[in-house]
Amino acid sequence: MLGLAGLPLGLRFRFLDPSREAPAASVGELVVGAYDDASALRRLADGADAVTFEFENVSAGALESLSGLAPVWPPPGALQVAQDRIAEKDLFRSLGVEVRAYHAVTTKDELDAAAAALGYPLVLKTRRFGYDGKGQAVVRDAAALEQAWSEIGGAPGGCIAEEFVAFSREVSVIAVRGPRGEFDAYPLVENEHREGILRRTIAPAPGVSPAMTRRAREAAKRVMEHTGYVGVLAIEFFVVGVGAESTLVANEMAPRVHNSGHWSIEGAHCSQFENHCRAVAGLPLGPCELAGESAMLNLIGTPYETARSAMARGGVRVHWYGKEPRAGRKVGHLTLVGPDSHAGSVVLARELGLMS
Amino acid sequence: MLGLAGLPLGLRFRFLDPSREAPAASVGELVVGAYDDASALRRLADGADAVTFEFENVSAGALESLSGLAPVWPPPGALQVAQDRIAEKDLFRSLGVEVRAYHAVTTKDELDAAAAALGYPLVLKTRRFGYDGKGQAVVRDAAALEQAWSEIGGAPGGCIAEEFVAFSREVSVIAVRGPRGEFDAYPLVENEHREGILRRTIAPAPGVSPAMTRRAREAAKRVMEHTGYVGVLAIEFFVVGVGAESTLVANEMAPRVHNSGHWSIEGAHCSQFENHCRAVAGLPLGPCELAGESAMLNLIGTPYETARSAMARGGVRVHWYGKEPRAGRKVGHLTLVGPDSHAGSVVLARELGLMS
Repeated sequence: MLGLAGLPLGLRFRFLDPSREAPAASVGELVVGAYDDASALRRLADGADAVTFEFENVSAGALESLSGLAPVWPPPGALQVAQDRIAEKDLFRSLGVEVRAYHAVTTKDELDAAAAALGYPLVLKTRRFGYDGKGQAVVRDAAALEQAWSEIGGAPGGCIAEEFVAFSREVSVIAVRGPRGEFDAYPLVENEHREGILRRTIAPAPGVSPAMTRRAREAAKRVMEHTGYVGVLAIEFFVVGVGAESTLVANEMAPRVHNSGHWSIEGAHCSQFENHCRAVAGLPLGPCELAGESAMLNLIGTPYETARSAMARGGVRVHWYGKEPRAGRKVGHLTLVGPDSHAGSVVLARELGLMS
Repeated sequence: MLGLAGLPLGLRFRFLDPSREAPAASVGELVVGAYDDASALRRLADGADAVTFEFENVSAGALESLSGLAPVWPPPGALQVAQDRIAEKDLFRSLGVEVRAYHAVTTKDELDAAAAALGYPLVLKTRRFGYDGKGQAVVRDAAALEQAWSEIGGAPGGCIAEEFVAFSREVSVIAVRGPRGEFDAYPLVENEHREGILRRTIAPAPGVSPAMTRRAREAAKRVMEHTGYVGVLAIEFFVVGVGAESTLVANEMAPRVHNSGHWSIEGAHCSQFENHCRAVAGLPLGPCELAGESAMLNLIGTPYETARSAMARGGVRVHWYGKEPRAGRKVGHLTLVGPDSHAGSVVLARELGLMS
């Protein structure tokens, strides 16, 4: 999607992917290699004006090693923070972005101490390499704590024990920053997860106060300024409480274009993909204003036939990624635009069996 | 643009182009060869589900020869008609689509007879291989007729002498037809040419009566049904007269996605490019409804720097084709969307020097 957005800007792409079947090969040259393969990375950067990434589990150190060949955006330092849930929460806290209590745990004793401090329920997660809800568990009592520890406790890098947040909903902010410090952000959007995987996003998030928008934008701005960020950054928040009393609690950040911003291809005047390309290439940023209301539904392990049938529905825009459907794998998404899109996406998801 | 529109539908592309520098290589495999190179055409069609074209000066006979390998859409027969201004006007007339008087001329005597019948001014054009206003002249007297004949008269395939139409404006209809006879068309748009090259399109064409829309749609439908058409077809019309008295006179048709439909990438719910892909691939057609008002400005011989500066303007969407700018060459286009786009495009064209 970065390639599709960048080509009309006059940009040309080279991609690094471990698989020969990488869909990105359709929109640029493909270098096949591991994300930390030094020679493949050098081939990637050779002659490039900039290097970027759209996947978090890439080696920050390997990216760092490219800085001599081409600027790497977002800065590997921001990636490094995002790869470590403790560093991420430490950063949020140091910048005045609200987070709930958390403890780094590397031993069962530390976990027991954290549980005593946090109480139940709590959330145990691996500190590193989390993705789509993998490597985490909501723990409701001491027996479950044993169980969770036996499953996750041995993860390289240790774990994080977090206060369980009884949120009313989840929202995210997608922000973009250019190399001259230009900053903008899309309106807050609301996200619906199932089994730790994003299923549906609606833009804009309904019933968001100007104060909440301001806080989310400010959080993104502080993180970006602190890390010397260039490109698109997403921060996911829990909304705690309802109505005028509600507050935002930061959950995590993603130093890349984000699934909760896919609606912006049709739903905003300039998509997150185009804005990431513009930022990284040093072009002027595009407007983050909405083109109208929109909704995005992920296709997860969905067969092509379902996407094809969605094409027969007037207002549905189909994005098929060209990947082989497998259980739990994101193989595409659908976007609905217009005033009926929020409600319409619920109906469509039900009809196509996307949320079950 | 066909590739960019088709990739998210799950389609994959192979392109034939005489140049190694063809921009299409960014979105698919490139076969380098002439449009009538039989072996290159076979490599193009090998294993393909369908073959299509987006350029009229390709050999209809060569395409015909591929029908055994893969279906060719639009049908080469429709291309053949469009390549011959006499056959085109004969078809329009036979289907009840209004055209003005025209005469096939292959000798100076025939031209003199045509001029006697038509009177001055008249328009002399080559019968074949016209493009962007090349190979045509408005002739205002007998001396100019001599001059025009000496320049154009020797064209292979002969010439056509046409009644000069004092039109008030030019409009076009972009229609799409699927392999099961599904038909739809975008609202009429208004086109502004300079020196025979399209400069600006506004969508929808202002002040168009429902009757005019009906006639234009009906003209496209008849041509498509008569030729067994699959894909996108454009028909350009002159609007003669003003207000309620105005009528449509068909000028020419293009059996392909058309420059006067480029606005549809942002301005319609499904673009002409996506709909052409859908039709040719046998997928359901998408909606031709407008997403709002829009305007398109061609970048003709324009340097990249101008496109880049357009990116800094909030509401402007930039499409750079990745071609080297040369005088008269279309190297990109800009789209404006929203209620101010029609007037805004005039201002922008002036500021960027696009219409001079």
